Amino acid sequence: MNDHWKIPKLPGASAAVMFLALSIHANAQTPELASWNDGPAKQAIVAFVKEVTDKSGIKYVEPQDRIATFDQDGTLWVEHPLYTQAMFALTRLRELAAQHPEWEQSEPFKIVLANDYSAMANFSESDWTAILAATHAGMTTETFQALVKQWLATAKDARFHQPYTALVYQPMLEVMDYLRANGFRTYIVTGGGQEFARVYSQSVYGIPPEQVVGSSIQTKYEYQDGKPVLMREPKVFFVDDNAGKPVGMNLFIGKRPCAAFGNSTGDKQMMEWTQAGGGARLMMLVLHDDPVREYAYGPAGGLPDTKVGTFTQALYDEAKSRGWNIISMKNDWKRIFSFDK
Amino acid sequence: MNDHWKIPKLPGASAAVMFLALSIHANAQTPELASWNDGPAKQAIVAFVKEVTDKSGIKYVEPQDRIATFDQDGTLWVEHPLYTQAMFALTRLRELAAQHPEWEQSEPFKIVLANDYSAMANFSESDWTAILAATHAGMTTETFQALVKQWLATAKDARFHQPYTALVYQPMLEVMDYLRANGFRTYIVTGGGQEFARVYSQSVYGIPPEQVVGSSIQTKYEYQDGKPVLMREPKVFFVDDNAGKPVGMNLFIGKRPCAAFGNSTGDKQMMEWTQAGGGARLMMLVLHDDPVREYAYGPAGGLPDTKVGTFTQALYDEAKSRGWNIISMKNDWKRIFSFDK
Repeated sequence: MNDHWKIPKLPGASAAVMFLALSIHANAQTPELASWNDGPAKQAIVAFVKEVTDKSGIKYVEPQDRIATFDQDGTLWVEHPLYTQAMFALTRLRELAAQHPEWEQSEPFKIVLANDYSAMANFSESDWTAILAATHAGMTTETFQALVKQWLATAKDARFHQPYTALVYQPMLEVMDYLRANGFRTYIVTGGGQEFARVYSQSVYGIPPEQVVGSSIQTKYEYQDGKPVLMREPKVFFVDDNAGKPVGMNLFIGKRPCAAFGNSTGDKQMMEWTQAGGGARLMMLVLHDDPVREYAYGPAGGLPDTKVGTFTQALYDEAKSRGWNIISMKNDWKRIFSFDK
Repeated sequence: MNDHWKIPKLPGASAAVMFLALSIHANAQTPELASWNDGPAKQAIVAFVKEVTDKSGIKYVEPQDRIATFDQDGTLWVEHPLYTQAMFALTRLRELAAQHPEWEQSEPFKIVLANDYSAMANFSESDWTAILAATHAGMTTETFQALVKQWLATAKDARFHQPYTALVYQPMLEVMDYLRANGFRTYIVTGGGQEFARVYSQSVYGIPPEQVVGSSIQTKYEYQDGKPVLMREPKVFFVDDNAGKPVGMNLFIGKRPCAAFGNSTGDKQMMEWTQAGGGARLMMLVLHDDPVREYAYGPAGGLPDTKVGTFTQALYDEAKSRGWNIISMKNDWKRIFSFDK
């Protein structure tokens, strides 16, 4: 939905890059953050946690108010060349095409079926809404969850030849563990689908479904053979992106986070809202500047189309002027994926 | 909103009943449920918890899935003669009247200002929406929370001469403690306002704001003097009542409860949804059948107007046929309020 449903041009050469740089460092000073280099990003995280948990300090935060929020796509896992959920939608559309011969003649479906990625890059929001309605609605929540689970178990990323759930950033898993070990509750606050992410949030991130805030479509309470079900309707209910993120955090959590992690303009208001709370605050943006081990886009250049991750130069400058921390994938992360050696 | 915003006729004589029956029983078998008589309701609760927590049993439930949901008005605290939040709305309307001389001439405001409760009893949903817009919107979430807090600190119920937050049912506080001691997370799932209940949920019920699911109005992310705020808009966003309760539970919790407590037709679908999950299940409805210590309405008769708590005879019969437990305030509760001796 919104920017999250914009599709980029598929990268050419870089999609074929298979070489994973080896990055071996020993003797990390903080074992909990073993995949982090000892640079400014790691130091900011450790200093923040120290402030929040120091009972004698003026920035001490009670455990019940230790809330940390994480954007998902591009912050916790790979969003290139396409958001994982969009990949699910396209796969499902192709599967359903046999039952819908009319799609061969109608946009936006025929573009997807022709694998015309450059045309998909220009899809409007209503195109994506049509795809969403065709692939994400008209079934119960339980059926939807089962479809997502099944797809995730078999689908693989074209570049890394890994299941999508293996493309999470190991350093971010460590940050979540580190925060939880220090009394924080970690939340996903994603522009992507809430019901989608809840399928795997516990197993992949250690985050229970009730701590996933995201975009949603309407559901309707109905009876099937006398049994109550929640039917997914082809109608957007809530868009948890941009200004929707503070709205969603207030709605679903009812507390303001003191730490927030993002990677794009869709996270800007989450950063602002977090910072405006006063006291100890940590705002961090992941910069994709590692074309060898992952991708480079946004201010780090590299890929020609930056629609996928709208980390604009303006956001970068704003982060610098407001004291939001930049996480350089290239410089701050020893290891990016758990399968990196 | 919806049924929750229907207003009853003010009871005549019973509103003046001040006598609180003394009910002293010693040696309760389960200390955690000290205010419960040892009847079928208490036995159902204890048997359910035993099943859920018995690791060797077939109905064992993992702690992360032990979710119990509680309706608020009429289930956790007194809803008669009017929901507490409606009382707040009317008080606030009267306070604001000086700045709105036009209200003297326009419905529904002039009816409220004339204290015409019998006319209020016939208010339509759009009347209540107008009152809601005038009293609950046009301010930031922080301002709203401060107003609620301030009002709750001073307002008192006319019959009991107690703050509204003292009119919670002691046996229900004990059930929540008992469930939490057995690994459950307790949620409020109310047709009333989510932001309203979050103001006092922690101090009154021991339930943190993030475990309060309720009705909500739209909020808008804005800037005031460069500082981000969430403005409350005069537009309903979500109605967490009737079929909205399963929708809300799926949306906000993402897990199906295995125990649910309610007291009216607004809770029927919550009961159905809870029961349909299979395994150990506990569905309980509070019956207001104690005109001496609290009120009697619904199938227990008593008050002439049952709009306030729509525990219909049909719901009572359905509960009996489906195995939902009835909690008789008169017979199952030794003590109703903490101030009862």
